[in-house]
Amino acid sequence: MRKLFSSELGKLHEQFLEMGVNTSEQIYQATKAFTTHDKTLAKEVVENDQSTNGEEVHLEKEAFDFIALQQPVAADLRIIMVILKASSDLERIGDHAVTIAQETIRGETDLRLPIIEKNIADMTVQIRRMLEMALDSYIRNDEKAARQVADEDLIIDKHYVITRNMITDSVQNGFMQANTGSSYLMVDRMLERIGDHIVNLAEWTIYIGTGEMVELNRGKRNPGLVEELIEKDKSERNT
Amino acid sequence: MRKLFSSELGKLHEQFLEMGVNTSEQIYQATKAFTTHDKTLAKEVVENDQSTNGEEVHLEKEAFDFIALQQPVAADLRIIMVILKASSDLERIGDHAVTIAQETIRGETDLRLPIIEKNIADMTVQIRRMLEMALDSYIRNDEKAARQVADEDLIIDKHYVITRNMITDSVQNGFMQANTGSSYLMVDRMLERIGDHIVNLAEWTIYIGTGEMVELNRGKRNPGLVEELIEKDKSERNT
Repeated sequence: MRKLFSSELGKLHEQFLEMGVNTSEQIYQATKAFTTHDKTLAKEVVENDQSTNGEEVHLEKEAFDFIALQQPVAADLRIIMVILKASSDLERIGDHAVTIAQETIRGETDLRLPIIEKNIADMTVQIRRMLEMALDSYIRNDEKAARQVADEDLIIDKHYVITRNMITDSVQNGFMQANTGSSYLMVDRMLERIGDHIVNLAEWTIYIGTGEMVELNRGKRNPGLVEELIEKDKSERNT
Repeated sequence: MRKLFSSELGKLHEQFLEMGVNTSEQIYQATKAFTTHDKTLAKEVVENDQSTNGEEVHLEKEAFDFIALQQPVAADLRIIMVILKASSDLERIGDHAVTIAQETIRGETDLRLPIIEKNIADMTVQIRRMLEMALDSYIRNDEKAARQVADEDLIIDKHYVITRNMITDSVQNGFMQANTGSSYLMVDRMLERIGDHIVNLAEWTIYIGTGEMVELNRGKRNPGLVEELIEKDKSERNT
C-alpha cells in the first residue's frame, strides 16, 4: 500500500513538473510571437493554453481523489497541498503568456523598437532561467537555491521599471503610437508578474522543507527598493 | 469529535469570508486613492495588504494542520481544498489592489481625465458587487448565482477594452502624458484581472456543489467575444 502510495505521489509530482516545463515553453512561444509579430504562433499559444488549464484541472482532480481515497500521512498531505497551490501559480503564468499572445494578435502596427524588444527578450531568458531553477530547487528540495531564485526576481523588477520608462518616453516623444506603447507596457507587466509567481514557487519549496511560509518577494516587501537599486546602478555607472 | 470538526471547518469558512470582505474593502480604498490622488490612503492600502497576506498564510496553516490531524472525510476535504485554492484568488485580488495603490504613489501628475476616472469608479462598483455576489453564492452554495457572477464579468471585460481605447486615444491626441496613460492602463488592467479572479471564485462554488471543474470565464473561452459585444452595442445604439 505504502509503495503504491509513494508512486501515486510521484505521479502527481511528474504531472506538476510537466506542467512547469510546458509553461516555460508557453512563455518562450508567447514572447517570440510578440517580438516577431507572428500572429499564427500567437494563436497557437492561446489554443495550447486550454491544455495547460486542462492539465491543472486534471492534477487537482487526481490530488483531491487521492487524498479522499488514501488518507495520506501528514508529511505527504503537505506535499500534495503544495502541489495544488503551486499548480495555481503555473496556471497564472500560462494566463500571462496568453495575455502576451493576445497583445500580438491585437497588434495592428508593424513598428518595432528594437531596444525595447531586446529588453523583452532578455527578460524572457531570465524568467525561463528562474522558472527552471525554481522547478529544479523544488525537485531537489533545495532551500538555498529557492531563495536565490527569489533574489533574482529583483533583476526582472528592475528590467520592468526601466522598460516601462523607455516605453512611456518613446510614446511621449512620438517615436511610438500610444496603442503600440500600451501593448509593450502590457507585455512588460506580464513578464514582471510571471516573476512574482516564480517567487511563489520558491516559497512553496521552502514550505515543504521547513513547514514555514515565508515572503521571499523583496520587491513586494519593500516597494521603493527597485527604484533605489536602479538609481544605485546609475550612480555606479557614472562614477 | 464530529461536532468539533464541523466547528473547525466553520472557523475556516469564517476566516475565508472575512478575507473576502477585507479584499473588497482593499479594492474600494485602492481605486478611491487613485481617483482622488490620495497618496496617504494609497500607502495605507499597501501596508494593509501585509495583513491580508498574513490572513492567507494563517488560513493555509490552519487548513494544513487540520487535515493532517483530523483526517477529514472526502466531502469535508473537498471543501477545505477549495478554501485553500479560493484564498489564493483573494490574495491575488489584494495584490492587484496594491498595484493600483502603487500607481497612485508613483503618479507625479495631477492631471485628471474625469471620463476615464468615472469608468474606473464604475468598474470598481461593479467588481465589488460581483465579489460580494461570489462570496454570497459560495456561502449559500448557489450554483445559479455563481454562474451569474461569471456572466457579469463580461461587463468588466467590455469596460476594460473601452477604457483602454479611451486612454490610448487620449495619449495619442496629446490630452494626457504617456506616463499618466500608463498608470491609467495599469489600473484598468488590474480591475479586469480582479474580475477574472472573481470568476474563479464562482467556479470553486460550483465545484463544491457538483464536484465538476468548469471554465466560466466566457472572455477566456472566446477571445474575440468582448470586441464583438462592443461592436454589437455600438450598432444597436446607432439603429
